[in-house]
Parts: sequence; structure tokens; C-alpha cells
Amino acid sequence: MLDTRLDQTLTAFLAGDRRAAARLITVVENGGQQAEAVLEALYPRLAGVHRLGITGPPGVGKSTLVDSLVRHHRGHDHRVGVVAVDPTSPFTGGAVLGDRVRMGDLTTDPGVFIRSMATRGSLGGLARTTKEVVDVLEAFGLDTLIIETVGVGQTEMDIASTADTTVVVLSPESGDSIQAMKAGLMEAADVLVVNKSDRPGAGQMVRTLEADLHMRPASDWMPPVVQSIASRGEGLDALTAAIASHQDHLSTSGDLERRRRRRVQNEILAVLRDRLWRRAETDLADHLPTWTDRVASGEATPYAAARQLMARLLEDDG
Amino acid sequence: MLDTRLDQTLTAFLAGDRRAAARLITVVENGGQQAEAVLEALYPRLAGVHRLGITGPPGVGKSTLVDSLVRHHRGHDHRVGVVAVDPTSPFTGGAVLGDRVRMGDLTTDPGVFIRSMATRGSLGGLARTTKEVVDVLEAFGLDTLIIETVGVGQTEMDIASTADTTVVVLSPESGDSIQAMKAGLMEAADVLVVNKSDRPGAGQMVRTLEADLHMRPASDWMPPVVQSIASRGEGLDALTAAIASHQDHLSTSGDLERRRRRRVQNEILAVLRDRLWRRAETDLADHLPTWTDRVASGEATPYAAARQLMARLLEDDG
Repeated sequence: MLDTRLDQTLTAFLAGDRRAAARLITVVENGGQQAEAVLEALYPRLAGVHRLGITGPPGVGKSTLVDSLVRHHRGHDHRVGVVAVDPTSPFTGGAVLGDRVRMGDLTTDPGVFIRSMATRGSLGGLARTTKEVVDVLEAFGLDTLIIETVGVGQTEMDIASTADTTVVVLSPESGDSIQAMKAGLMEAADVLVVNKSDRPGAGQMVRTLEADLHMRPASDWMPPVVQSIASRGEGLDALTAAIASHQDHLSTSGDLERRRRRRVQNEILAVLRDRLWRRAETDLADHLPTWTDRVASGEATPYAAARQLMARLLEDDG
Repeated sequence: MLDTRLDQTLTAFLAGDRRAAARLITVVENGGQQAEAVLEALYPRLAGVHRLGITGPPGVGKSTLVDSLVRHHRGHDHRVGVVAVDPTSPFTGGAVLGDRVRMGDLTTDPGVFIRSMATRGSLGGLARTTKEVVDVLEAFGLDTLIIETVGVGQTEMDIASTADTTVVVLSPESGDSIQAMKAGLMEAADVLVVNKSDRPGAGQMVRTLEADLHMRPASDWMPPVVQSIASRGEGLDALTAAIASHQDHLSTSGDLERRRRRRVQNEILAVLRDRLWRRAETDLADHLPTWTDRVASGEATPYAAARQLMARLLEDDG
């Protein structure tokens, strides 16, 4: 399945070569058959390392918080992987990715692996690709896995579903424009952080969030609300304690197994969907333009066209 | 294809019954075979009415602007359909939908049909469902179709692709937290509006946007930047002129035909994808739990499971 060059990269990866890891991640991001071959080869090396998701609106200090968390874990000699999902575009170029520059010394620390992913292209596939990139980092032998996403739409819900524990970060200044996003964010949260807690309104925000949380459907986990000032490293102990406590809850309640089983099922279906679709695209490439013309000219409906194309697909396959 | 009750609803719909229209929209939103049957029955009634998309960050005054546009069109005796895509959640309930209450007298105007759609559930399918709901409104005989979405992620790009002309609304106060979203919004824009133009910084914002627009890849349409104060109805004439000018450009440049052909092709593929997937889910329902167990217990990889399931699917079909 793997071509020779990819096979060599894989060997280097398993020997701990960081450049090979970066290359495999690119292959996985590009998707398709090669990605599948890489992921299949790495699959047996996944050991179930805890995955932490950090999300929240732009400007609340997520990157600074992730930065502090990484330093905290390095202090315990953990090897840390960070996948940062950044919205970007041809216009802004690397503006948001530029944040990563702050991580300065961390990027040269061999115990830290940071990868930025752009959200350009299909959002639908983003949660899946993110999960797969984290799979590569886990197979690389990292002990702590952090997924950082800008939670601006409901994407955070999908991406959150790839993490075991999702931390939602807000700040007292996130303000009104955040209202519309808050619902999705609250739903995704296992732990809530009010960062920049030295700003006015922090206490009030904690109380509001706690009141909101009581309106969630009853469950045996009540997300704690933690205050932090990430830029000064304050609140880190409370945050890591809250994360550990959620991790304990996952194991003892059976939630971890349920979440992971659901994730396995989603993954099988995603691979199946991809394969089916690749097959359909190849088999139908010659016929799609003809049917597009017929529908565009009003000779057929999209539904009739799809029926004919499907019959052809199954016939070819039979 | 249509069951008797649905057939009656369709007859009522074609006679102009608004409740029947609301019911058909619900059927279409729910998806599946019934949705497909309804859309197929309505397809021949689609005449290519211009579709206007209005998007932008929360709080910039989109609803007020849409409100004014609807009144403007009513003034010209057009029958107007509005599909408003609102982010919502069990927590906030109808908080955002509540905006619609402002439309007060418009909701009882028989020449106006307003439908709110929640973004709960799969975001991936949202653009498609939105397009289909607009199809129902067009088949209902409305002359002007407006799609309003809160552009907080990159969803606006997908939804924009269902409109002929996309208007992106910003306001001088949208501020920093908007930066991360702006890139996607700018890319989607055929017309830009700086609403709340009586607020400080409006002129500066227009200049910044115009400078940003010059960094877009060259194209034969340069999106105009219009200022408005929707709450006072100011700037409406400039906005409708800009929209009309884009509409002219679409026809004369051949862009309209290209966009619509692309949309037809996407629609055929979407229907095909749905059908294939429904078939797969039905055929594989009995086997998926077994394979999920095998993968969860480490006996198989998700890739091996998908291969086996795909072989079974094609065999069953052959």
C-alpha cells in the first residue's frame, strides 16, 4: 500500500525523526489513499493517550493558556504534542499562525511538537483530519496531546468530539459578539475557564456561567468554572486539577469507553464514506458532465440524474 | 413516491397555501426520501429567481438591514421570501430567533414568507438544506429570495455558494474579535456594507476594506463598499443599486451561468451522496456494531473494517 518513499519516511518516523513526523502529517492532511495507508500502518501504535481540547472565541488568550499548559507538562517531563487549528485565508496569510511565534523557545524543545492546521477548505472534514493528525502525534510517542481550536462557529462541537476533555476559554471582554457563539461553546465544555480574570467583570462572568451551566440537561458531570490569568501563569494549577478530575470521571463513569466506542464507529463510517466516494468519483467522472448539462438545460432533474448515476455505479461494481 | 398526505400538502402548496409551504419546508429540513420526493416534484417550477445572501458577524445589524430590504421590495410589490439561518441551542432556545419578533407587521404580510432555520446538527449539510428550503420558497412563487446567515465560521462561504449575490455586513464596532472571521467573509463578498455608519470609525473602516479588496486575486468584479444606517433606512438605495449592478455583471459576464452550472453539479453529487449513504446505512446496519466491537477491542483497524463493510455493500448490490 505504501510507496517506497513513504515507507522510508515511516521507518524514520518510528525511529523518532521529527521531519518524518511533519511529512506524515502533511500526507494525512492531504487525504486520499496515501493518508489511509499511513493511518492504517500507525493504528496499532495508538495507546489511548488522553486528548485535551482547548477552544474559545478569538482574543480570549487561548494560545497563551496552551503555552502555559505546555510549559507545565514539560515541567513534569511529559512530551507534548499541540495541534492548533487556525482560521486563515489567502488574505491574512499567516497572521493568526504568527501567534505561534510567541512559543519561541518551545518550538526548539525536542519534547514539544507543534503543528498548525489551516481551516481553509472543507470544514466538514476538519474534525476528522484533526483527529488523524493527533493520531500521528500519538503514534510518535507523545504523552500529552492538546488540540487548540478557535471556536467561532459550531465547528468546536465537532472538533471537541475528537478530544476526551474539552476546555472552553472565555474572557470578561469577550462581550456581546460572543453571545451567539456561547451556546455551542457551553455545550462542548467539560471545563470552563474565565481567562484574563484580572479584568473587570470576571467574577460576574463566573457567576453567569455557573447559572447557565445549571440549565444544562442533568448529567453526572458538572463542568467546573476556573479563573486564570494565563499571561502570568495564574490559575494553571486549578485548571490542571479540573482536567485531571474530568479525566478521573471519564474512567470511573464509563464515559471514556462510551465516547471512544462512538469515536471508533464514526471513524469506520468516515473511512467507508471516503472509499465509497472515491470509487463513485472515479467511476462516474465520464458521465457527470453529461448529466450536469442535461439538468442545466432542464432536460432532467438532479434527482433523475443521481438515480441514473447510482445505477451505473452499482452495475459497474457488480 | 409521495405518500397521500404529502401529496395533498403539495396540492395545497401549489394553490398558494402558506401552511402547506411551512409543512413542506419541514419535510425538506428533515431530509431523507420524503424530502427528495418533494424537491423532485417542485424542481420544474424553479425559474432561476435571483438569490441574495446577507451574512456578517453577530451584532452588526443584519436583521435590521434585511428588514429594510424586505420593506423596500414590498414597496415595489415584490413577494419576498427570507430564510434566516440562526445559531441556536437547547440553552439559548429561541434567543436569537427572537430577533424575528422585530419584524412584527411583516410576519402578517401575505407577501412575505419568513423561515428561521437553526444551525443545530450537521453544519456540513446546512448549505445544502438552506438551498433546498429556498428552492421550496421559489417554487411557491416568491419574486425575491433572501438568505440571512450569521457568518461566524467559514460556514458563510458554503452558504454564500447557494446565493447569486452575497452581501457581507460589518459595523465599525465589530472590532478585533472579528479579525479572525474577516478573511472568510471578505472572500465571500460580492458587495460589502458598513452598517451603523453613524458610529465613529466608519469612514476609516470603508478605506481599510477598500484597501483589503485590492489585495484580492484580480477579477472582473470589484465588490463595492456601501455605507448604511439600517435602523434609519439610510443607504438602502445605494445597497439595492450595488446588488442590481452585481446582478447585471453576473448576466453579462457569463458568471451567472458558470455559478449555476457548478451549483447543478454540486446538487447532483449531493443527491447521489445521500442515496449512496442511505443505501449503505440500511445494508450495513446489522454489521456495523460487530465491526465497531472488533476495532474497539483492537482485533481490527477501522480501515480493515471499512474494507470489509464496503465489500459487503457492493456484493449485496451486485
